[in-house]
Amino acid sequence: MKKGNKDFLLSKTAQYLLPSVSLDCVILCYHEGEIKILLNKFKMHENWMLPGGFVNIDEDLDNAAHRILKERTNLTNCSLKQFYTFGDKNRINIDENKILLDKYSIQNEEQHWFLRRFISIGYYAFVMYDKVDLKKQSDDLCEWVDINDIPALYGDHNKIVNKAIDYLRVMINYFPFVLELLPDKFTMTELRVIYEKVLGRKIDRKNFQRKMLSYGLVDKLDILFKKKGIKETTLYSFNKERFLYVLENGLSTF
Amino acid sequence: MKKGNKDFLLSKTAQYLLPSVSLDCVILCYHEGEIKILLNKFKMHENWMLPGGFVNIDEDLDNAAHRILKERTNLTNCSLKQFYTFGDKNRINIDENKILLDKYSIQNEEQHWFLRRFISIGYYAFVMYDKVDLKKQSDDLCEWVDINDIPALYGDHNKIVNKAIDYLRVMINYFPFVLELLPDKFTMTELRVIYEKVLGRKIDRKNFQRKMLSYGLVDKLDILFKKKGIKETTLYSFNKERFLYVLENGLSTF
Repeated sequence: MKKGNKDFLLSKTAQYLLPSVSLDCVILCYHEGEIKILLNKFKMHENWMLPGGFVNIDEDLDNAAHRILKERTNLTNCSLKQFYTFGDKNRINIDENKILLDKYSIQNEEQHWFLRRFISIGYYAFVMYDKVDLKKQSDDLCEWVDINDIPALYGDHNKIVNKAIDYLRVMINYFPFVLELLPDKFTMTELRVIYEKVLGRKIDRKNFQRKMLSYGLVDKLDILFKKKGIKETTLYSFNKERFLYVLENGLSTF
Repeated sequence: MKKGNKDFLLSKTAQYLLPSVSLDCVILCYHEGEIKILLNKFKMHENWMLPGGFVNIDEDLDNAAHRILKERTNLTNCSLKQFYTFGDKNRINIDENKILLDKYSIQNEEQHWFLRRFISIGYYAFVMYDKVDLKKQSDDLCEWVDINDIPALYGDHNKIVNKAIDYLRVMINYFPFVLELLPDKFTMTELRVIYEKVLGRKIDRKNFQRKMLSYGLVDKLDILFKKKGIKETTLYSFNKERFLYVLENGLSTF
C-alpha cells in the first residue's frame, strides 16, 4: 500500500504541483537487433504506461523531465528532447484515474488533482541499452519492451508513442541521432539495420552507403571486420564533432 | 477601461480556464521583400507581445490555439503547428502582470490566476500577407513588424520568437513551407530570396536552383517572365500535391 508514502507520485499534495501539466518520456534503445521502449507499471494497476509525472510548482519544465525520468526508471544523463505537447481534453479517462486512486487507498475525493484534466509534454531520448541500470528497489515495474510488441497503455500513451515514432521516422533522415547507439567501430550494415528498424522498412543498401559517406559523419577505418565464413568488411567510426553539429543543424542545408 | 468586459483576456474567471497553461503564436508572412511577424499590444500596456492566451477548461489545446488567434488578430484558417513548449519557472515576470492588472483596474489580489506561473505552448504559421484582415474593432493593437526590427516584448516572448526562427531556419532545409507564400507563377530568384530572408543569409544561386529542381516541387512553365530592361526569365509554379506530401514527410528520405 502506497498511502502515506510522500515520494509516491499520486501521494503528492496539490499545492506543490503545477496544476494541469504533466510530462511523459519516450525512451528508446537498440538491443539485440530491435528498437525497445522503456515502460513503467504501478504493480497494482493493470496498464503499462510511459515513464512520466507532474511538474513541481517551482521547477523548470526541462528539469522536471530529468527528475521524473530518474525517479521512475533510474535513468540519468540522457539527452531528453521535446517532440510534442498533447492537450486533447479527453486524452485521459478520468474513471481510470479514480480506479487507480482507489487501488492505492488514496482519498478519492472529487478535488484530487489526479481527477482533473492535465496536458502532457512529450519528451524522447535514445539511450544505450547497457548504460541503463533499471530501477529495482521500487514496487513499480520498469522494463524494456520491443516497439513491435507494445501492449495497450494507460490513457493516450499509445498515441504518444505512435506520435514519437512518426516524428523520429521523419527526423532520422536529417538528424542522425542513432549514430550514438553504435559501438566505437561498426560496419555499414550495422548502421543501416538500425535505420531500417527505426524506419520500420528496408532501405536500399547502396543508396544508403553513398548518402551516409557523403555526409562526412562516418570515417572509414584502416581495419577490416573479419568473421569466420563472412567476407572481410570495412569498419567505420563516427565523427563526434560533426555529429554534434549535425544533430542541431541537420544533415544538409542550402 | 476593460473591467467587466467578459471577452477581455484578463477578465476571464479562473474556473473556466485550464490552470497553468497558455499558448503563444508566432505568425509570419512575407511582404515587400521582408519576413514580418504579427504582434499584439494591449493599448494600456507598454510592451508588445505575441498573440496568445489561455486554454478553456473544456477545450482541446489545438482548438484553443485557433480560437485565440482569431480573437486576438482576426486570423482564421491557418495551419498552426506546435514547435516548442516553454516552461521555465521564471519565464514571466509576475510584477509585470500585476502592473497590467492594475492598469485595467482588475482586482489585483494574490489569487488572480494571471499572477501564478504558467507554461506556454508555442505555435507557428506562415500566412499570406494579403489574406489577413487584421482585427480593427478592438482597443488592442495588432500589427505586422519586420523580424529584424522586433522591440522588447512581454515576458519571454523575444525568446519564443528566437526559438521559432532558429527552428524554422533548420526545418526550411527539409520542409519547404515557404512555397505557399509565392504567387501562382514565380521566378527562381523570387523563391531563393524568400529562403534567404528566412535563413538570414545569402545562398548560392546555382546550387539552390539545382537542388530545388531535383525535389520535384516546382514545375517549369512554358512562359517567360519579361520586364523592361531585364533578361527573359523562366517562370515556375509549385506542385501542390507533392508539396503537401513533402510538408509531412520531408524532402528526401533514405
